[in-house]
Amino acid sequence: MNPVAAKIRMGFVGGGEGAFIGQAHRQAAGLDGGFELVCGAFSRDAHNNQQTGAALGLAASRCYSDWQGMLDSEAALPAHLRMELLVIVTPNHLHAPIASQALKAGFHVFSEKPAALNLRELLALKQVLEGSDRLYGLAHTYLGYPMVWQAREMVRSGVIGAVRKVLVEYPQGWLSQDVAGQGNKQAGWRDDPEQSGLGGCIGDIGTHAFSLAEFVADQPIEQICAALGTHIAGRQLDDDAAMLLRMAGGASGVLIASQVCAGEENPLKIRLYGDKGGLEWRQEEPASLIHRSIDQPLQVLRSGVGQPWLCEAARQRMRLPAGHPEGYLEAMANLYGDLARAIRDPAPGPDAPGVPGIETGLRGMAFIEAAIANHRGDAKWTALACTQ
Amino acid sequence: MNPVAAKIRMGFVGGGEGAFIGQAHRQAAGLDGGFELVCGAFSRDAHNNQQTGAALGLAASRCYSDWQGMLDSEAALPAHLRMELLVIVTPNHLHAPIASQALKAGFHVFSEKPAALNLRELLALKQVLEGSDRLYGLAHTYLGYPMVWQAREMVRSGVIGAVRKVLVEYPQGWLSQDVAGQGNKQAGWRDDPEQSGLGGCIGDIGTHAFSLAEFVADQPIEQICAALGTHIAGRQLDDDAAMLLRMAGGASGVLIASQVCAGEENPLKIRLYGDKGGLEWRQEEPASLIHRSIDQPLQVLRSGVGQPWLCEAARQRMRLPAGHPEGYLEAMANLYGDLARAIRDPAPGPDAPGVPGIETGLRGMAFIEAAIANHRGDAKWTALACTQ
Amino acid sequence: MNPVAAKIRMGFVGGGEGAFIGQAHRQAAGLDGGFELVCGAFSRDAHNNQQTGAALGLAASRCYSDWQGMLDSEAALPAHLRMELLVIVTPNHLHAPIASQALKAGFHVFSEKPAALNLRELLALKQVLEGSDRLYGLAHTYLGYPMVWQAREMVRSGVIGAVRKVLVEYPQGWLSQDVAGQGNKQAGWRDDPEQSGLGGCIGDIGTHAFSLAEFVADQPIEQICAALGTHIAGRQLDDDAAMLLRMAGGASGVLIASQVCAGEENPLKIRLYGDKGGLEWRQEEPASLIHRSIDQPLQVLRSGVGQPWLCEAARQRMRLPAGHPEGYLEAMANLYGDLARAIRDPAPGPDAPGVPGIETGLRGMAFIEAAIANHRGDAKWTALACTQ
Amino acid sequence: MNPVAAKIRMGFVGGGEGAFIGQAHRQAAGLDGGFELVCGAFSRDAHNNQQTGAALGLAASRCYSDWQGMLDSEAALPAHLRMELLVIVTPNHLHAPIASQALKAGFHVFSEKPAALNLRELLALKQVLEGSDRLYGLAHTYLGYPMVWQAREMVRSGVIGAVRKVLVEYPQGWLSQDVAGQGNKQAGWRDDPEQSGLGGCIGDIGTHAFSLAEFVADQPIEQICAALGTHIAGRQLDDDAAMLLRMAGGASGVLIASQVCAGEENPLKIRLYGDKGGLEWRQEEPASLIHRSIDQPLQVLRSGVGQPWLCEAARQRMRLPAGHPEGYLEAMANLYGDLARAIRDPAPGPDAPGVPGIETGLRGMAFIEAAIANHRGDAKWTALACTQ
Repeated sequence: MNPVAAKIRMGFVGGGEGAFIGQAHRQAAGLDGGFELVCGAFSRDAHNNQQTGAALGLAASRCYSDWQGMLDSEAALPAHLRMELLVIVTPNHLHAPIASQALKAGFHVFSEKPAALNLRELLALKQVLEGSDRLYGLAHTYLGYPMVWQAREMVRSGVIGAVRKVLVEYPQGWLSQDVAGQGNKQAGWRDDPEQSGLGGCIGDIGTHAFSLAEFVADQPIEQICAALGTHIAGRQLDDDAAMLLRMAGGASGVLIASQVCAGEENPLKIRLYGDKGGLEWRQEEPASLIHRSIDQPLQVLRSGVGQPWLCEAARQRMRLPAGHPEGYLEAMANLYGDLARAIRDPAPGPDAPGVPGIETGLRGMAFIEAAIANHRGDAKWTALACTQ
Repeated sequence: MNPVAAKIRMGFVGGGEGAFIGQAHRQAAGLDGGFELVCGAFSRDAHNNQQTGAALGLAASRCYSDWQGMLDSEAALPAHLRMELLVIVTPNHLHAPIASQALKAGFHVFSEKPAALNLRELLALKQVLEGSDRLYGLAHTYLGYPMVWQAREMVRSGVIGAVRKVLVEYPQGWLSQDVAGQGNKQAGWRDDPEQSGLGGCIGDIGTHAFSLAEFVADQPIEQICAALGTHIAGRQLDDDAAMLLRMAGGASGVLIASQVCAGEENPLKIRLYGDKGGLEWRQEEPASLIHRSIDQPLQVLRSGVGQPWLCEAARQRMRLPAGHPEGYLEAMANLYGDLARAIRDPAPGPDAPGVPGIETGLRGMAFIEAAIANHRGDAKWTALACTQ
Repeated sequence: MNPVAAKIRMGFVGGGEGAFIGQAHRQAAGLDGGFELVCGAFSRDAHNNQQTGAALGLAASRCYSDWQGMLDSEAALPAHLRMELLVIVTPNHLHAPIASQALKAGFHVFSEKPAALNLRELLALKQVLEGSDRLYGLAHTYLGYPMVWQAREMVRSGVIGAVRKVLVEYPQGWLSQDVAGQGNKQAGWRDDPEQSGLGGCIGDIGTHAFSLAEFVADQPIEQICAALGTHIAGRQLDDDAAMLLRMAGGASGVLIASQVCAGEENPLKIRLYGDKGGLEWRQEEPASLIHRSIDQPLQVLRSGVGQPWLCEAARQRMRLPAGHPEGYLEAMANLYGDLARAIRDPAPGPDAPGVPGIETGLRGMAFIEAAIANHRGDAKWTALACTQ
Repeated sequence: MNPVAAKIRMGFVGGGEGAFIGQAHRQAAGLDGGFELVCGAFSRDAHNNQQTGAALGLAASRCYSDWQGMLDSEAALPAHLRMELLVIVTPNHLHAPIASQALKAGFHVFSEKPAALNLRELLALKQVLEGSDRLYGLAHTYLGYPMVWQAREMVRSGVIGAVRKVLVEYPQGWLSQDVAGQGNKQAGWRDDPEQSGLGGCIGDIGTHAFSLAEFVADQPIEQICAALGTHIAGRQLDDDAAMLLRMAGGASGVLIASQVCAGEENPLKIRLYGDKGGLEWRQEEPASLIHRSIDQPLQVLRSGVGQPWLCEAARQRMRLPAGHPEGYLEAMANLYGDLARAIRDPAPGPDAPGVPGIETGLRGMAFIEAAIANHRGDAKWTALACTQ
């Protein structure tokens, strides 16, 4: 008889009432089923913090007024009670400081992206992580979609041949107007370099497009040539970016990320073309992967349990038969599932397989810094640098 | 300060390892976040039962070998520990017997559809329910989708005018071959009248199409003219149905439900046309509701938090901003959420608002019986009867 | 050296200014390139008639005030000058009388559908045709689309196995309002049984759906069970129809044709399912043929010169490389092209291969009469009869 | 009574059997109905030339062995017989020399794009045109689509506000392999700089994307930053291009044109975003124009006679009711129709309204030269120059 499975005890920093992404994390973890919320420091606003904790069924004693206190108090609890995993869903500037302290205090960390505010801070976090035996994951949710793994596998196994072109785009419209000026809290801190980092759109969604491109094409982007834009008076950071790409494997590409594409929702999309065929995936219709070929009709591979032509990595990330839509929360729940397996692994490695980690964070930060440098300078091409 | 929210204690009958729908229920309840699994009788196979319970973190004492024992034992526990809600995910023939016993033992019930094997049994269950103060919900998951509610609201408020035509279709392909003969367990019991009832496809998915049509058109189907079919040698029940409809409000319609539409996944779809316009919704792309009009261009209403043109009922059933796909589990989680609110309601009514209940079950049973009677008889039209 | 090709001399009855379908015929013939307009009796309105002729470059002497005069005068011209082919684009009640006279006078005929007002008249026309050596074609334009031929070929060659289900639908919206009452000329005569025949929607577009189903499924529809409707006060003929189908090869089906599906344009669509797979084609996106299969991913076959996987019949009906849309006029031009080849064929048969003819007209008329009889009667099923 | 309309007498250089584009021009002109083919020099291959002429019904005397002879002989014919319009469908390097001679000899010209091999040659042609009273049109077929005009009108009238972003892409796949090496004639001359000019993909389809962007955005592109690529050993010209754009009105953009996007057909696509909304049009589905807005649901405007919300310019370019697809040949026929009206205009201007002319050619040539210069040089941005 198997032993009774114990859920992983999870705490949150951030994610008080009204914060979209914190709620999404809790829903995804709930969907996965392997986690139990045991504590939180949800908001700097004491009322919101208590309110959120109570609504989530936490005793007042596990609802902390600040994250430092939470780390200390939880570390002092008996091993079978204390938090095992800290989920960080604060504004960007707190990601690295909290993650570092949590790792040092012996907790696994799952952090919203970006990993840090800048490359320097990120390299420091990396050093902490290298001296730790804890796991660190980064919530690049789009890398949790099964058909993204299917696409990567088809690239790797040569189905489309040598990759020549990568076209990735992420056009959103929600910053077409001055929403920060109109009181949108998320738009507010995202435009404050102190809280958000140097990149606006380029950091917020450009990094998703970037990571998706490197992940699926299975080769790093080496050089970029970028144009950034800012379209609202008083806005401090970029709200729009486009760039040409040169990749390590010889492919060229285009990356578009914008938050002023009025009326667009969230259509992150990637297309890859090799000498034998092409692939296309679009986040708003995540169950379909289009496969074009030079010598046969277009195929649409569909997500869904029981499709024998899908790869193992894709199949592990599905719950339902084809035609029963799975979406964003399911993709995030896949990251949580991989995290749970890694935490419970009796012989864990330094990474949680399947979960984007510090290297993904590092690549994304190099991307942001290169984009800004290229935009500001005169050179046509700028190389991505993961060291200082 | 709000009191700490207590999760609703939930038990399962059925849903052992390998059973798709039980797992979906647990994932949906987890996604909602308002429930805690406390007990189960997951499988008649003792090993599977124990295995499932252990994997779900249940102590062996709350993992029961049969549902009767579970009802008795749980009823004997102190109120603050015992199960509050029983989820029934067994083959069809057990739905009504278990539900009746559970209601009598003082538990709320959430049952997979159909509510019963036949009209007689269903009316008996209804009588039990009427003598109870417990809630009864039926897992018509497709009625949990936000854009289904949006469509219904647009019909009700006259956006498309008086409804003239309702076209609903549910073409699946998974029974195109003799999958039961090939060992598919779900196909197996579904084709056994003792376990499944008189309807095959007509009961399994025809009732979904039927309920969706009545729900969105906001008027009952009164008469049908049906042709059923069975396409595999040795198959006992229908695997295909098509019928003409006459509705109470004067609309006519067509209902197609089939499980031999080779290659189709799960594209339940409804179209309605009134004298001012039309609506179209398709389950495989659930975030989009197409609105056609006689005097303006086609519109696509999209699901997503923050779209001011959506109705309140739709908005309550969304979690994420537009463009972040929500799917089948989210729709089911919406039913769980409504159930949780109704259970915690200090002044509960007989129904859980928003959750399909015994009336939906009754209509569906009348539909199955009318379809079979019409198919077998000579009359062109057969009226639906909810009484015997 | 090849001899210089002479264009086929063509005359029109009907198709004066303001008449949509006459203009479409001239554009399609022009696109084909094998025809030359030499005469016409375009309108009973003398001014419109002269105006149309002049605009089309006809000398006044070849612009006739009535079709009888035209037939007489043209027959009296020297063989190398006189009309060879008569195109009939009048209201329905004139189709058969004109066609009969034209055949008798030695002209080939290409007629708008329906071939006649009723079965009796149609059988009389058939007799005339059997005594003639002239060709007779019927403008079932949708049968000119290349991917319709591709679908038929895939059915014939067994790609989807034995056909079990045929779902054909043709929902239009243009009669949702009382457009005849508002002065729409086309809606006007179409609702007059004297000019239109007994069928309204069932004749106007139901026959297109019917012919497409028989053509692609490659088997006759034997029995139908129908419900017709009329939705506007004062409207004489049906504006809506739905029916269940039984086909000769054992397939069952559903046919929907309606002109009160408010907001719909012209989405004639057919789906067929066999024991190995299914096909789907939609007139509004005519270049794509969806092929579903029980054992491989969905494929989309696309129209376009140079796709080696398309059948010969489809390839002959394309002009442009894939991705350069061809549409309705190209489909009609395909009928004209087949007609031209048959007319110039030194050893012509009784039919123009590839062009729907009197048999298609006969089947369509049997369909209309069966639909009306079934709708009016009590019997569930009515057989189609092509004889009286 | 109107006078009898006389068709415009048209001659061809190029377009012998096997040449796709020449046939398309004849079909488009035939569809329009205002033209009559009277002469041609279809091929340098004498047999093909005679064969083509005979098949098209030309007397041998009007089928010329070379274009110079044709110009001379036709000019010597009586005015009521001789060619009025010369259509040039040869390889690129002959476009300007033939056009210049034809204009000088008194013929109107409709030329395939590009107008010339390089900017110098183009400016010379422009000078000839300025000294002539003849019309000159350039076959930018995609500018003949009605919904392209609708999009431009919506931009002009401020429906989407001030344009911020223009994303235009034209990914084809037909040069993914070495098709020239495999004997494809069209691929062959297109890769020869002597016949094709300096641009490969950038000239062949990049100019279509460029012209579409300037036309719809209604503002010139001023600067570009480009990366070109060549992917087949031995291929001389670029087969792939991507670039960042800066436009005169302050918009930024991205242009992608590639012929190595394996499996892609012809999905030229443009998206524009302003501060109030966005537009999207895709050539493979040309009847639909998507309109996104910051404050209402997405709309799909559909091409089709009788849609009152479409602009006059769009309505003039439609033939059929909505839902009856019109495509590439219809778009080209729209250019022919505009050309016919301009030629018959009793008070003609220097341009044919609605037909792209020498200025469009000039812009396209400046684009090609700037793209190549930028690609080869070190500067990040290169300005487009229409003068030398």
